[in-house]
Amino acid sequence: MRYRRIPDETVRRLPIYLRGLLFPLEQGQESISSQDLADFVGVNPWQIRKDFSYFGDFGTPGVGYNVEKLVKQIKKILKLDVAHKAALVGVGNLGVAVLAYPGFKIYGFDIAAAFDINHSKIGKKIGNIVVEDVSNLPTLKKRKISLAIMAVPRDAAQHTADALVKVGVKGILNFSPCYITVPKKVKVMTIDIAMDLARLPYYMPAH
Amino acid sequence: MRYRRIPDETVRRLPIYLRGLLFPLEQGQESISSQDLADFVGVNPWQIRKDFSYFGDFGTPGVGYNVEKLVKQIKKILKLDVAHKAALVGVGNLGVAVLAYPGFKIYGFDIAAAFDINHSKIGKKIGNIVVEDVSNLPTLKKRKISLAIMAVPRDAAQHTADALVKVGVKGILNFSPCYITVPKKVKVMTIDIAMDLARLPYYMPAH
Repeated sequence: MRYRRIPDETVRRLPIYLRGLLFPLEQGQESISSQDLADFVGVNPWQIRKDFSYFGDFGTPGVGYNVEKLVKQIKKILKLDVAHKAALVGVGNLGVAVLAYPGFKIYGFDIAAAFDINHSKIGKKIGNIVVEDVSNLPTLKKRKISLAIMAVPRDAAQHTADALVKVGVKGILNFSPCYITVPKKVKVMTIDIAMDLARLPYYMPAH
Repeated sequence: MRYRRIPDETVRRLPIYLRGLLFPLEQGQESISSQDLADFVGVNPWQIRKDFSYFGDFGTPGVGYNVEKLVKQIKKILKLDVAHKAALVGVGNLGVAVLAYPGFKIYGFDIAAAFDINHSKIGKKIGNIVVEDVSNLPTLKKRKISLAIMAVPRDAAQHTADALVKVGVKGILNFSPCYITVPKKVKVMTIDIAMDLARLPYYMPAH
């Protein structure tokens, strides 16, 4: 089964469901209704049922979805059933926050390397990672790291991305507030940490 | 016009369009085609046309959309046509990164106050903000700050949110990797900076 037909919007929601399911899974809960999952993750229950139907899981009426099976399916679809190593480029405040963030492990990621251009940072140990000189980036290929997290200043974003692509990186999580251009075979996700704030006033009552 | 019928998914994309339009606006570009905007923001052109049709803007065939008018419309719908002050709670690495992040200004936000519980941080000046003791949170009401950004440890998330709700905060941008419970009149956006990384392997070619 290749799950070829799953719409992008559904794929976008799968990590949300995954995170929502990990807690019941830890608690040993066997099944969950779309309504309970909906309450937990903030997505409509009908949307959840529709999304899950794309990969053929219709649950059991009156019982719900099997938590363990669902976690396995979602991980498989998202290719999170194998471990992924990632490299961090840019160890400023945001980079240090990324290294300390517990969320990456939840999805099976291991931030295995960190790079900076600043000599005062190179060689410094943060957690169990020693910051390396960006000139070491070409070692990523040998180390089989094909995912990168970019937390560099805006001006450095494009040439950092170019360098990452050159050493075989296939996926980039970009925290710089700008769009970057990469070859088609490389996937970039740009996070704008301000954008969600821009969504709030719409929902807020008038003063 | 109250724009009551705009679907949430469209509202979610409006800040993306807004950011994409600000650069052409700055450059004095008068109009933009859905195709050009699509290339710039990474959303399908048909989706853009559909989204804009919800607020009655169909553009001019062969010319495109009027950039200035579109920016005004989107800002008005998102209630970003008025200035918004926001408070930051938690001045750790992520909090400092938030204070330094240029993206908030783009949407018209002014991070006007920062709070921490740690005495070594209170009184410290970061940019032009002096970090205050969290015991000062009740002053937010008088200062007319009803938006807050939470960059606190997971354990502190719920009671920080409770404290913010108590002093009249109506919108919370939450960076803690957990769900928090608030009264219905308060809107929370939880950002999981790891979640977008979890979306990348799906799109990556096999090794």
